[in-house]
Amino acid sequence: MAERIRVGIVGYGNLGKGAEAAIAQNPDMCLSAIITRRGPGAVQPRTAGVPVYALADIETLKGKVDVLLACGGSATDLPEQTPMLARQFCVVDSFDTHAKVPEHFAAVDAAAREGGNVALISAGWDPGLFSLTRLYARAFLPQGEDYTFWGRGVSQGHSDAIRRIPGVLDARQYTVPVPEAVDAVRGGACPQLSTRQKHTRECYVVAAPDADRDAITEAIVTMPNYFADYDTSVTYISAEEMAREHSGLPHGGFVIRNGSSGLDGEHRQTMELRLALESNPEFASSVVLACARAIVRLHRRGETGCRTIFDLPPALLSPLDAEELRAHLL
Amino acid sequence: MAERIRVGIVGYGNLGKGAEAAIAQNPDMCLSAIITRRGPGAVQPRTAGVPVYALADIETLKGKVDVLLACGGSATDLPEQTPMLARQFCVVDSFDTHAKVPEHFAAVDAAAREGGNVALISAGWDPGLFSLTRLYARAFLPQGEDYTFWGRGVSQGHSDAIRRIPGVLDARQYTVPVPEAVDAVRGGACPQLSTRQKHTRECYVVAAPDADRDAITEAIVTMPNYFADYDTSVTYISAEEMAREHSGLPHGGFVIRNGSSGLDGEHRQTMELRLALESNPEFASSVVLACARAIVRLHRRGETGCRTIFDLPPALLSPLDAEELRAHLL
Repeated sequence: MAERIRVGIVGYGNLGKGAEAAIAQNPDMCLSAIITRRGPGAVQPRTAGVPVYALADIETLKGKVDVLLACGGSATDLPEQTPMLARQFCVVDSFDTHAKVPEHFAAVDAAAREGGNVALISAGWDPGLFSLTRLYARAFLPQGEDYTFWGRGVSQGHSDAIRRIPGVLDARQYTVPVPEAVDAVRGGACPQLSTRQKHTRECYVVAAPDADRDAITEAIVTMPNYFADYDTSVTYISAEEMAREHSGLPHGGFVIRNGSSGLDGEHRQTMELRLALESNPEFASSVVLACARAIVRLHRRGETGCRTIFDLPPALLSPLDAEELRAHLL
Repeated sequence: MAERIRVGIVGYGNLGKGAEAAIAQNPDMCLSAIITRRGPGAVQPRTAGVPVYALADIETLKGKVDVLLACGGSATDLPEQTPMLARQFCVVDSFDTHAKVPEHFAAVDAAAREGGNVALISAGWDPGLFSLTRLYARAFLPQGEDYTFWGRGVSQGHSDAIRRIPGVLDARQYTVPVPEAVDAVRGGACPQLSTRQKHTRECYVVAAPDADRDAITEAIVTMPNYFADYDTSVTYISAEEMAREHSGLPHGGFVIRNGSSGLDGEHRQTMELRLALESNPEFASSVVLACARAIVRLHRRGETGCRTIFDLPPALLSPLDAEELRAHLL
């Protein structure tokens, strides 16, 4: 086997831990470093013998890793970290603030070119695999409509938003597709669906003993951007029930495109991708890792700059070579 | 808008007619020629004003088309035609004889390099979109098993095989996934499934009035490669019922990968792509056409040689540019 790809994980939260597990499933890759803001001692890697570095010392990793996985959050970590890292290393992130993608892409692209590296932003399942599915579905069925449904699954951003409300000790928010909307679309219809008609939001909250539950509920269901446009249910539970019933991070969803073909558009054609994930961060980081394999290969060809999953020849994501792929997967 | 891509269709059967309809759905492309073995007069294009050429005169199309779609059959047409066409033009085919892919690839690659063209083989939905799904699913879920089910849909190869039996006037064969197998896999199990356990075959036959139906049935269900390994049902119907109930070419199916993630493989992760097609050839030719857009773009960059859909950056399949894709589909 060729030299293994040496991977560094920047940030050791859910996504970073997922990446660690994903690397162990890919024999052509190895985990060479974990990098956190606070450095050695602050985290205990689950993989034996992996060194931990402080983000401030990242330069000392030059020549020791082939690619970094930036596993921080999109709100504040990645806009700053990915360009900084791309100046020195090949790097993949899972930036998911849709509105700021053009700006982030430009910053990372400039940094990667300056450093002679290849970077890739917005890997994961949405953005990521679902984005790919939308692209392929529209290219293959140019006449039609597509629908993306998320869930049933835990939204960490929405859970965090509830936790910031005074009197809330813990919270978990599930995004749930509306069954009638899913059935209509799966049945081949192309309805116009409002935000409220596509998803509902289920909230499980542990409140402080003296908290005003009515006030918390009101604060949740009227919260702009997060809940105001949805039918939202709020259920108060104990800390024990939270730990027992809601400790996982399941998610998933589906992209459906209903198209028509023929000179008179007379034939209905449906394409659907469905994901059912017991662990959202483990799947997302596995996509990030496959993208890392691809950009290391691009870098070895002498390419530089920022990419998205739209730019990657699928073959580069696979550990198999082109001949094996044609023989066994085509 | 930039200059439209000029497309020629070689072969005007189901796939060629599907391609004609697909071109009409893509404003960045236009149908410039239909090429058949027998030439002008032998076919009447449904699109007004499209010239028809004889395959023997294909050289006169030099400079008049940007890409050809080879819409012939895999058994005898494509092994000969695609290399011949690739020597003179960019060309896409839907070659689907899995065992002969390496040989066909090598022949087309040599011809395309010799002619300074880009070619792509085995576009469609399987091989094609289903192959892509298998590649992505294995890259994202390296630990697991995947399953491809086809149907319920008409297999033209199997229908043709029945028609060659003496006493058969017409036949239609449906490939049908076994519901128990589908349910087991959808439920997350990774069973070992034999050919017989995955699909059944339903045959509808119009027999000559004096034909020995028992002999026909026996010839079908014992036919090696086609039916012997399957549970096969044979139903005799009238020519009127055949025309009324079985004139369409529906198909579809699904690729399911059941994987596990986590350091101990403790989380189940499922990815499924489903296609439900009222017209198999119209969807297949729409994939062929999107691949044609991509290889014209590769050719304009100065590339040559043979490709498969595994080699195409997804962005090249879309009429949208990279910025639009990032802004709207990522």
